Amino acid sequence: MAAVKSPLSDSDLKVVGEALQGALIDLIDLSLVAKQAHWNLTGRNFKVVHEHLDEVVAIARAGQDDVAERAVAVGVNPDGRARTVADRTQLPQLEAGYLDDDKVVAAITDLLAQMISRFRERIKATDEPDQVTQDLLISITSKLEKQHWMFQAQT
Amino acid sequence: MAAVKSPLSDSDLKVVGEALQGALIDLIDLSLVAKQAHWNLTGRNFKVVHEHLDEVVAIARAGQDDVAERAVAVGVNPDGRARTVADRTQLPQLEAGYLDDDKVVAAITDLLAQMISRFRERIKATDEPDQVTQDLLISITSKLEKQHWMFQAQT
Amino acid sequence: MAAVKSPLSDSDLKVVGEALQGALIDLIDLSLVAKQAHWNLTGRNFKVVHEHLDEVVAIARAGQDDVAERAVAVGVNPDGRARTVADRTQLPQLEAGYLDDDKVVAAITDLLAQMISRFRERIKATDEPDQVTQDLLISITSKLEKQHWMFQAQT
Amino acid sequence: MAAVKSPLSDSDLKVVGEALQGALIDLIDLSLVAKQAHWNLTGRNFKVVHEHLDEVVAIARAGQDDVAERAVAVGVNPDGRARTVADRTQLPQLEAGYLDDDKVVAAITDLLAQMISRFRERIKATDEPDQVTQDLLISITSKLEKQHWMFQAQT
Amino acid sequence: MAAVKSPLSDSDLKVVGEALQGALIDLIDLSLVAKQAHWNLTGRNFKVVHEHLDEVVAIARAGQDDVAERAVAVGVNPDGRARTVADRTQLPQLEAGYLDDDKVVAAITDLLAQMISRFRERIKATDEPDQVTQDLLISITSKLEKQHWMFQAQT
Amino acid sequence: MAAVKSPLSDSDLKVVGEALQGALIDLIDLSLVAKQAHWNLTGRNFKVVHEHLDEVVAIARAGQDDVAERAVAVGVNPDGRARTVADRTQLPQLEAGYLDDDKVVAAITDLLAQMISRFRERIKATDEPDQVTQDLLISITSKLEKQHWMFQAQT
Amino acid sequence: MAAVKSPLSDSDLKVVGEALQGALIDLIDLSLVAKQAHWNLTGRNFKVVHEHLDEVVAIARAGQDDVAERAVAVGVNPDGRARTVADRTQLPQLEAGYLDDDKVVAAITDLLAQMISRFRERIKATDEPDQVTQDLLISITSKLEKQHWMFQAQT
Amino acid sequence: MAAVKSPLSDSDLKVVGEALQGALIDLIDLSLVAKQAHWNLTGRNFKVVHEHLDEVVAIARAGQDDVAERAVAVGVNPDGRARTVADRTQLPQLEAGYLDDDKVVAAITDLLAQMISRFRERIKATDEPDQVTQDLLISITSKLEKQHWMFQAQT
Amino acid sequence: MAAVKSPLSDSDLKVVGEALQGALIDLIDLSLVAKQAHWNLTGRNFKVVHEHLDEVVAIARAGQDDVAERAVAVGVNPDGRARTVADRTQLPQLEAGYLDDDKVVAAITDLLAQMISRFRERIKATDEPDQVTQDLLISITSKLEKQHWMFQAQT
Amino acid sequence: MAAVKSPLSDSDLKVVGEALQGALIDLIDLSLVAKQAHWNLTGRNFKVVHEHLDEVVAIARAGQDDVAERAVAVGVNPDGRARTVADRTQLPQLEAGYLDDDKVVAAITDLLAQMISRFRERIKATDEPDQVTQDLLISITSKLEKQHWMFQAQT
Amino acid sequence: MAAVKSPLSDSDLKVVGEALQGALIDLIDLSLVAKQAHWNLTGRNFKVVHEHLDEVVAIARAGQDDVAERAVAVGVNPDGRARTVADRTQLPQLEAGYLDDDKVVAAITDLLAQMISRFRERIKATDEPDQVTQDLLISITSKLEKQHWMFQAQT
Amino acid sequence: MAAVKSPLSDSDLKVVGEALQGALIDLIDLSLVAKQAHWNLTGRNFKVVHEHLDEVVAIARAGQDDVAERAVAVGVNPDGRARTVADRTQLPQLEAGYLDDDKVVAAITDLLAQMISRFRERIKATDEPDQVTQDLLISITSKLEKQHWMFQAQT
Repeated sequence: MAAVKSPLSDSDLKVVGEALQGALIDLIDLSLVAKQAHWNLTGRNFKVVHEHLDEVVAIARAGQDDVAERAVAVGVNPDGRARTVADRTQLPQLEAGYLDDDKVVAAITDLLAQMISRFRERIKATDEPDQVTQDLLISITSKLEKQHWMFQAQT
Repeated sequence: MAAVKSPLSDSDLKVVGEALQGALIDLIDLSLVAKQAHWNLTGRNFKVVHEHLDEVVAIARAGQDDVAERAVAVGVNPDGRARTVADRTQLPQLEAGYLDDDKVVAAITDLLAQMISRFRERIKATDEPDQVTQDLLISITSKLEKQHWMFQAQT
Repeated sequence: MAAVKSPLSDSDLKVVGEALQGALIDLIDLSLVAKQAHWNLTGRNFKVVHEHLDEVVAIARAGQDDVAERAVAVGVNPDGRARTVADRTQLPQLEAGYLDDDKVVAAITDLLAQMISRFRERIKATDEPDQVTQDLLISITSKLEKQHWMFQAQT
Repeated sequence: MAAVKSPLSDSDLKVVGEALQGALIDLIDLSLVAKQAHWNLTGRNFKVVHEHLDEVVAIARAGQDDVAERAVAVGVNPDGRARTVADRTQLPQLEAGYLDDDKVVAAITDLLAQMISRFRERIKATDEPDQVTQDLLISITSKLEKQHWMFQAQT
Repeated sequence: MAAVKSPLSDSDLKVVGEALQGALIDLIDLSLVAKQAHWNLTGRNFKVVHEHLDEVVAIARAGQDDVAERAVAVGVNPDGRARTVADRTQLPQLEAGYLDDDKVVAAITDLLAQMISRFRERIKATDEPDQVTQDLLISITSKLEKQHWMFQAQT
Repeated sequence: MAAVKSPLSDSDLKVVGEALQGALIDLIDLSLVAKQAHWNLTGRNFKVVHEHLDEVVAIARAGQDDVAERAVAVGVNPDGRARTVADRTQLPQLEAGYLDDDKVVAAITDLLAQMISRFRERIKATDEPDQVTQDLLISITSKLEKQHWMFQAQT
Repeated sequence: MAAVKSPLSDSDLKVVGEALQGALIDLIDLSLVAKQAHWNLTGRNFKVVHEHLDEVVAIARAGQDDVAERAVAVGVNPDGRARTVADRTQLPQLEAGYLDDDKVVAAITDLLAQMISRFRERIKATDEPDQVTQDLLISITSKLEKQHWMFQAQT
Repeated sequence: MAAVKSPLSDSDLKVVGEALQGALIDLIDLSLVAKQAHWNLTGRNFKVVHEHLDEVVAIARAGQDDVAERAVAVGVNPDGRARTVADRTQLPQLEAGYLDDDKVVAAITDLLAQMISRFRERIKATDEPDQVTQDLLISITSKLEKQHWMFQAQT
Repeated sequence: MAAVKSPLSDSDLKVVGEALQGALIDLIDLSLVAKQAHWNLTGRNFKVVHEHLDEVVAIARAGQDDVAERAVAVGVNPDGRARTVADRTQLPQLEAGYLDDDKVVAAITDLLAQMISRFRERIKATDEPDQVTQDLLISITSKLEKQHWMFQAQT
Repeated sequence: MAAVKSPLSDSDLKVVGEALQGALIDLIDLSLVAKQAHWNLTGRNFKVVHEHLDEVVAIARAGQDDVAERAVAVGVNPDGRARTVADRTQLPQLEAGYLDDDKVVAAITDLLAQMISRFRERIKATDEPDQVTQDLLISITSKLEKQHWMFQAQT
Repeated sequence: MAAVKSPLSDSDLKVVGEALQGALIDLIDLSLVAKQAHWNLTGRNFKVVHEHLDEVVAIARAGQDDVAERAVAVGVNPDGRARTVADRTQLPQLEAGYLDDDKVVAAITDLLAQMISRFRERIKATDEPDQVTQDLLISITSKLEKQHWMFQAQT
Repeated sequence: MAAVKSPLSDSDLKVVGEALQGALIDLIDLSLVAKQAHWNLTGRNFKVVHEHLDEVVAIARAGQDDVAERAVAVGVNPDGRARTVADRTQLPQLEAGYLDDDKVVAAITDLLAQMISRFRERIKATDEPDQVTQDLLISITSKLEKQHWMFQAQT
């Protein structure tokens, strides 16, 4: 197969591709970080936070698929391999071992705030080149900001 | 919280912990590899293989959770962070860019065969120390071997 | 907890906060008005209009939650208390007692037209400050305009 | 349409009508108060209380409908308009702004205790005039008392 | 089998048995009348009234079963045979042939009003002898009064 | 409304109308007889036969609706009123009071055999005039014959 | 692929093929006409007729698929392209613009009567050549005649 | 936490508390007895009675929860511990080992009759002190009397 | 039990019985053949054909039950034992071992064509003796012909 | 009814109306083209492409309804009649008769690319006049582009 | 395709293959025998045993698929063709014609006891060579032993 | 009925029977203890722990049934009567009255640890005599160890 013929110009495609690839790394690592905390959590709020983290995982996994398929749909190959994620992720990483619930809530709050900031830049960057991609990024940002509020409210 | 009090002796726990941590890395990377192929696939059998890969992802994700929660339940902290997965995975990695359907089928077949071999070793290793863990590993192996047959049958 | 840290600047937040608080009052009172009509309705088209009003209630209630949670997610406290709704609502109020179906249809048509006009102003106002909020307002406006057509078509 | 022909005598209807209209105001404002807390909540128990409040909202909304439709079924027009609710509600009102989880739990406990007391008076008042209405009030009181226990148990 | 041993005294059983048998005839014939109208209906409101009548049928059929099984549970044989229903029913009967929607709505309104009056007498009669039966009659009356309002509201 | 314009000639309509009206009486009384037995049943096989009879009721009720709506669809008014059913039914009637399970099974077997015989005549009679009606009668006969076998097999 | 080997003789196939292709055009255009009315409807019965038309669309779409797949299953290529439908349809066409509910009900009643007449001819025509096809046509005719009654009953 | 503040006076609470605690013991032991029979049953009606007993278990378990939560809701601590149940239960106990189906049916019939008698006393006792509790007891009694009939009908 | 009393004459019963017994053997062996292929399949289209074969199995199994229960309902004992199927089946048998997907598609296409031919003879044979049985055979034939087209379309 | 009062100015309405009417024709014909291919398809990938085309039909049909109802909601009458679709469609048309799977995949890929180009122009055109309409067009374009990728990936 | 590469050594594979092929024949014939009894059953317990036999069929069919797919997954071709089943089955066969319920219950009890004995040998045989296969055989044996108890309890 | 014929030797049966009876007592009392805590709980984590305890009850009840039915399936009569449970349970008992959430979490953690230790002994004991029973005990132990971790993680 020849590369998917893009509905976008080359320069627009470059901007859009970078936004989507960046979002993909953010979302894959968010799912890995949230699962790591889901498994190693301790503390009086264990049960609630344990289950809340799985809601974050679900959002992150659904977002990954939408973002990666959007990339290939406009003609850019998404890269979600383990090495790529590990090398390019900008998310602060959790320590190994048991994780205290309060610290997890603080860490997720902080991590989401940083991701939201990057997603808002991507929304701006794609406004001209591709409103279809932008609409997807807006929708994911909306979910991230809702989770950010819910985690911050517990701190 | 003090560490979870394990129902296993220290030496048994060491064996079981290694088996589960190894299985966890295998299963997380399997989900990443299968998604990478799911997104970048091309070829006449695109639709079928694209959807088949998501069945593998579902097995890998369900397996991750069971394996990691089994680890913490016996008193070992699972480590499923991006860096850990990237550094320790034994799965052959896919190239970036479009992936031909025939090559993906062959790669998944090969990759599953290797994973199955490691899982069979883990089944043996846990037979004495913890039959509860062993039963979980048998159940996952059964699903991997079924997928291995289905991919190989297409080659 | 400190106030939720907003992803928006103070001036943007002020505009967005007013738009969301205004939308909240509109949507809460829409649910109260539609229920009042749902209960006190009479006329040959009672059954159809009675049930149609509950579709409006469902839209209004889902919208309330989205709008109020969007407000708190960006750092503004929504106010949906009875006194606030009664004092600030701009919706024309129904009379007490039995309500004739034709008059209800006309009243709801008129009331939705006014709400739509305010929502369209809010869409404009939030375009610069926060496209995520704007996207939510567009989505609710779309539903209100569909209901407006359906009620008007019966007149 | 002429007024619905009531199965009750005028004097019985007066008692029953007042009981149902009083219950309606209680239940509508309960739903508004619980939503206000649902949105503006903070504290370590945010997630649990946030979701618990929505169970209260569901009970209050289902109760509103049953009570108001019972009123019109016996020939009394229910009045659930914003102004009526704001003027006649006997529920203690929440302050604007963020609401601490412990204070919300205490406030809902207290508010339910007061509502239950009024509902128990309505059960007594309707015993002679209309056992059908009484049965509905008993059923709602049972749900309110269950919630009251659950909130009080957290204090 | 010997007759079911009743938890009620003979005199109480007589009252309760008559109440339940009377209710059974009312409810069976209500289902037959409503189906007759459902099938032979004409008029501009055909679709709405046609479907509304099936809600009445559903209530009548569920009520039949509860009432008849309550009778046999307390030791009275219910009689719901065609001849018994035809001979003892107190419901005004519909004419053969097409039935105008307005006339059907009026007839059902009237017929429900009469049934409700009989059910309210049965509620009174069973208050002393058997509150369990009374509770069932209250529950059915509540549904009949709701339908009565809905039909009358259309007139 | 003028009578529904029939797709059938007058003579065909007469045959079809009689077949459908006869089927309607059979099916309504089948539902009444089966419910009478469902309620008054006794014997060691009570539970099984009690539930089996409700399967018959479900078939009879679904059949009633299809048959009556088919009648009005071709321009004949179905008559399913209590008096009509009681006067015209050809089904052997059950005695009042408790009914022994073995006798019920025998009675239902016999009653279905008679109904099947009438339905087979109706299938023949409608073959020329209206194959659409015939197809409905075949479908109901198939269900009746299956039930007949199941009841007979228990004798 | 060679043409599907038909279980029918050439002469039978010709008759069956024409019946199915004719039915296909009828059913596709029925779905287009009903949707056109669904969208452009006005009048006091808007809501009911609007929803009723979608039931017709559902029947028409399910029928299209069955009819077209039956055609290809016996070895005839169905043709449901826009130009073919526009050129060969025998359905009276609606005017552009708003459509009054009473006129729509009358138009659909009339249009269904005409379609039914053609379907009854197709049932006759296929009786000898292919009873399997005939059975499908009978089943669709049954649904059309039920809808015809329901629309006519509203006039 | 201080004890739950009861809506009842001390003397009423004493009566209500005893009624609910008595009902709790009855219902817990009913579930244990029915399970014991469910497991050790033999006889030609094994399958039917085996499944019927699980319906009793479901009623008993749902009733336990309602009764115990009602107790704590009015301020009385329910006691459903194994020792308390064993010491206070009034249910006739089953023998160990295989249980003949006829004997089980007779035993359950008898046991339900005794329980019903106690529940009817509790309904009377709670009439003055707490109609909300009484309503719950009526509802459970209704289910027990239905089961009593069904088991007795098989004897 | 005496043999089920048949609604058919002896001579009709003989014809109908043979048609149903023949259909039963065809359908049981179809399910065995399709499963054999489902398990031993290989080739590039493995996944699609593997799943498609299970749709055939589902049709064959549902058909078996309908055909066998129809036989016993008219008074003929169906025989679906392994030996009977092996001795009387007319289906061409698959070889042992791996089966190439193209060959399976061809074999199923051929096998269905032969079965359809036999089913069409059974439809003819039962036309006079029993239209109820014929209707069942028509319905199954319709499903077989649809599958035949779908398999042939892949060749 | 007077024309629906539009929330848009006349000039904006003209632009929006044209965009929606154009989209409607595209989507209706897409559903007809995809069904034509669904029915007449042949080739080794028949099963997969046959089912994939129905996903396209589902998207096209859901899109039609949203687009047409959006048109009438803003005050423009949508026109989806057969003649209008045939005359104004810009989609390349399929030939009659059997259609090879590879050619269908290529044709759908090409056809979607052209539609996407027109939808992207409509997104631009509606940006100023009506962001609510634009949001709907963005959402449909997103789905079309995803399908375009999936079809192209198979070529 | 080359034969599926087995994770087992040749000698282990031989043992495992024989165990699985033996289980397959047992399970296929169990489904045929149970269906034969399901169809030809008579006696007072007809309804219960008729439905119970379908639970056995469901277990047998699910087991067949698992066992056969396990065989091919480890590299052995399962053989479930009619001739193979008829020739190799070890199940005692039912006589043709009507089957008395008591005799069926005894026959199924006996037949399951024999199958269980063979399955227990297979569990032993596969313990060393393949614990994954063994786990599947244990799971099926557990279900067979549960059914064996349930049938024996009825004797 | 004679005792169920066991597939096990007498000595194996003795071991297996004791393991299952012991497990049954553990699981029944676990369900009683968890319900007692579910009802009498207080504390800030009331809602979470209250619901978590019901997950334990569900596991305990499902386990009871599996264990008791396994016992009777191998020929041992399970004994789950109140007196037996009270006398033989090894679970530490809760005090009467309100129970603090922290203490409940600690008590459940401790109680599960003790039960797990006994279950692990039963797994060992049944390894030789009956791997089918062992597999069930492994499966329940796995669930208990997961709950143990989740409760301990909260301490």
